[in-house]
Amino acid sequence: MDVLGTIFTRTSYRGTYTEEKVPREHLKTILEAGLAAPSGCNKQTTSLIAVDDEKLLKSLYQVIDPPVGETASAIICVLTKRINAYRDKCYATQDYAAAIENMLLAIKALGYESCWYEGHITDEDAIGRKMADLLGVPGDMELVCFLPIGKPAEKVERTVKKKEFSERAWFNGYQRREE
Amino acid sequence: MDVLGTIFTRTSYRGTYTEEKVPREHLKTILEAGLAAPSGCNKQTTSLIAVDDEKLLKSLYQVIDPPVGETASAIICVLTKRINAYRDKCYATQDYAAAIENMLLAIKALGYESCWYEGHITDEDAIGRKMADLLGVPGDMELVCFLPIGKPAEKVERTVKKKEFSERAWFNGYQRREE
Repeated sequence: MDVLGTIFTRTSYRGTYTEEKVPREHLKTILEAGLAAPSGCNKQTTSLIAVDDEKLLKSLYQVIDPPVGETASAIICVLTKRINAYRDKCYATQDYAAAIENMLLAIKALGYESCWYEGHITDEDAIGRKMADLLGVPGDMELVCFLPIGKPAEKVERTVKKKEFSERAWFNGYQRREE
Repeated sequence: MDVLGTIFTRTSYRGTYTEEKVPREHLKTILEAGLAAPSGCNKQTTSLIAVDDEKLLKSLYQVIDPPVGETASAIICVLTKRINAYRDKCYATQDYAAAIENMLLAIKALGYESCWYEGHITDEDAIGRKMADLLGVPGDMELVCFLPIGKPAEKVERTVKKKEFSERAWFNGYQRREE
């Protein structure tokens, strides 16, 4: 699948997934795509855990409350270590966001759907920490996001309403009309 | 160019660029790729300015000190508005990082090279603010990054040293050996 086509058709899929399993080789390729993203000063602050064990997925979904993406047969959990790249500069958020975007595109390219779930697990109820504990993640890392992966059981539509190009992008000056 | 091939060959190019111009249609496609990235609660906090006007580029490079990517005939400036998606939750950094990663892949797919320059302009000398002023960007937006775009005049090599897969990614548990 070509890059631009994938970028322009990718969407946040919130429907149910079929029971079809995601082969390990596909999961590995998706993880590798995440790790291939750049990171500030190459600090590689992002780590990843793919979960396809049914029992473990069930345990995780006992803390992901309310559940989202729970029909997927695999998820990828995104871990970050908030270390400084230099002095007081930390790019960990940029690092994991770029890794997530790479993975979302790889997921789409391999014929699956997904959705970036972050706010759902990083709120005051600290679901991410509960998930991290179930996965044995040490306290100096945060589990900030998870991506369900699977074949969609429902129609995939890019329904998100986006502002017009001219409201968000310009040439040679802020809000300049030239094109 | 296919998604996975692009993800795995993309690299931070820090060499010089040829004098070949980047056509407007390519710049527009790259901007569209950036805007197609997801954003937290669809707040679309990222805006973009492509600069290909020679005089304006020269003015910008008088404040980008020391210069980086200065031989490129076009750059894209990334703007963010740090508004909350809900309550006190702001995803603006994730939003622009995902947009940047999309653009880096689109740039590569179209046959160009680039590099994510962020720390260089967001340090204490506030180069980003000086660039923003030259572009007429209002004070409630930050210019956090720029991407030079052009055909590479030097050999492109992915020389970055990355940790092994097994040091950063696992299946069904932190640092679990299973594969």
